[in-house]
Amino acid sequence: MNAFLKGRLVGVGTGPGDPELLTLKAARILAEADVVAYFAKRGNNSNARAIVEAQFRPEMTELPLLYPVTTEIARDHDDYRSQITAFYEESAEKVAEHLEAGRMVAVLSEGDPLFYGSYMHLHVRLAHRFPTEVIPGVTAMSGCWSQTGIPIVQGDDVLTVLPGTMSEFELSRRLADTDAAVIMKVGRNLPKIRRALEATAKLSRAVYVERGTMAGSVSMKLADKKDDKAPYFAIVLVAGWSGRPGAVGAQA
Amino acid sequence: MNAFLKGRLVGVGTGPGDPELLTLKAARILAEADVVAYFAKRGNNSNARAIVEAQFRPEMTELPLLYPVTTEIARDHDDYRSQITAFYEESAEKVAEHLEAGRMVAVLSEGDPLFYGSYMHLHVRLAHRFPTEVIPGVTAMSGCWSQTGIPIVQGDDVLTVLPGTMSEFELSRRLADTDAAVIMKVGRNLPKIRRALEATAKLSRAVYVERGTMAGSVSMKLADKKDDKAPYFAIVLVAGWSGRPGAVGAQA
Repeated sequence: MNAFLKGRLVGVGTGPGDPELLTLKAARILAEADVVAYFAKRGNNSNARAIVEAQFRPEMTELPLLYPVTTEIARDHDDYRSQITAFYEESAEKVAEHLEAGRMVAVLSEGDPLFYGSYMHLHVRLAHRFPTEVIPGVTAMSGCWSQTGIPIVQGDDVLTVLPGTMSEFELSRRLADTDAAVIMKVGRNLPKIRRALEATAKLSRAVYVERGTMAGSVSMKLADKKDDKAPYFAIVLVAGWSGRPGAVGAQA
Repeated sequence: MNAFLKGRLVGVGTGPGDPELLTLKAARILAEADVVAYFAKRGNNSNARAIVEAQFRPEMTELPLLYPVTTEIARDHDDYRSQITAFYEESAEKVAEHLEAGRMVAVLSEGDPLFYGSYMHLHVRLAHRFPTEVIPGVTAMSGCWSQTGIPIVQGDDVLTVLPGTMSEFELSRRLADTDAAVIMKVGRNLPKIRRALEATAKLSRAVYVERGTMAGSVSMKLADKKDDKAPYFAIVLVAGWSGRPGAVGAQA
C-alpha cells in the first residue's frame, strides 16, 4: 500500500442546529471533501446533514450510514450490543475503503464530534490507521444557554453534565453537589428530572430547551412547563453563577 | 428616548484560538458591527481580539475595556471586589453609550461567552435594557479534546468541569465520582491536580493541554510532563468512555 495514496479522515462538528453556527473551518473542509458521511436512522433525515446541506457540492459523494432497525431489542440486551458493534465495524470499513482510495472523508457530527457524538465510534476504529483530524463544533448545550441568555458558569463554578437516564437518586445526589448542571437525554425522563430538581431545591432555577438554535425552538422555565412531553434531545439547564444568592447580577 | 434609536448588544464567542474555529455567524456579526469591545489587561494583547483580528474593518470602532491594575490586592479582599465591580459598571456604561446612540456593539469573548466568559458581566447589566443576542462559540475544552483526538464522553457518561483552584480534597472527591473530567485554571495548581489524580487512580488517563488549537500548542500525558510549569489557561482532560475497561475502542 502506498502511503501517499492514503486519504484523510475528518470528524466535522456541525454545531447545535443553526447552519450559521458552523465554523469557518468546517465550511472549508466541506468545500474540499470528496466524501461526506453521516449516521442516520433509516427513513429519518440526518440532523447533521440538514445543518450543512447548503454546503454540499454536486460532485461530492454522500455516504449515509444507516443504523440497523433495533427498536424491538432492549438496549442493554447482548443482541443489541453485538448488532450495533457489527454496524460500527461495517461503517468503519465503508469509510476505510474511501480512505484507502486516497479520498478525503468528512464525517458529520451534530454539535461537537467527541462530546457524546456518534463520530467517535469511527474515530476509535480508524484514527490509528489514517491521518485524522477532528474539527470541534459548538455543542448543543452552548446553543441552548446562549439562545436563552443564561450565564451558565462563572469564576470557580463547578459544572456537571448529567444524562437524564440516571436513577432519580443519582440525579438528585449529583444535582445537590454542583453549582451548575446540564441534563441531557430528557425525553421520557422528564418527570424524574423534575422530581430530582424539586428534591434539591433547584426546580425554580431550571430552564427547559427544545430544539435549541433550530427553527421551532421552545424554551421556558421548567416550573412553567405544564406537560411532561419532551423529545429525547431536549436539554434542562441549571445556571450556577446567576442563581447564587447575592451574586452580582443575580436574576429572579 | 426613541426606542428605534436603540442599538444591539451581541456577545460573540471567538472559539478556542484557531481563527478558523470562528462560526459563520460570528464572522457575519463582525462584518456588521459598528463597535467591537473586548476586555484586556493593560499592556497585554487581548486573545479574543487576536483571534478575530483578520475580520476587523477600518471603519469599525474598537473599544478595549482595560482591567484596573489589581495584582497588589488579594482576590478575596473587599477592595478587589469593589474595584472590579466598579470596573464592570463603568465598562457596561461605556458600552451602553454606544447602544443608546443606536450602534451595534459586538463584545468578544474567547471560547463561549456564557461559559466562564467575562462577557457575562456586561450581559447581566445590559441585556434587560437593550436588544441582546449571544452567539455561542467552540469552548476551549472542545478545542483541547479535539486537537488531542480524545473521545471525552459517550453514552451515559457524566462529565464534571472543575476549577483547579479547588482544595485538594474537593478535587479528589469530585474526580473519584465522575466518568470524565475537565480541569480548568491549571497554572500553579498543577502539583495539587497531579496529587488529586493520583489519589483517584486517574493520573494515567490524564492529558495536559496548553494553548489548545493555537500556534505553539503543547499536549502530552500528564504523567509524562516532567515539570510543574503551566499557564493559568492550561487544561487537564480525563476521558470517560475510552478509559473504561472493556469499552469498545478502549485505548491504552
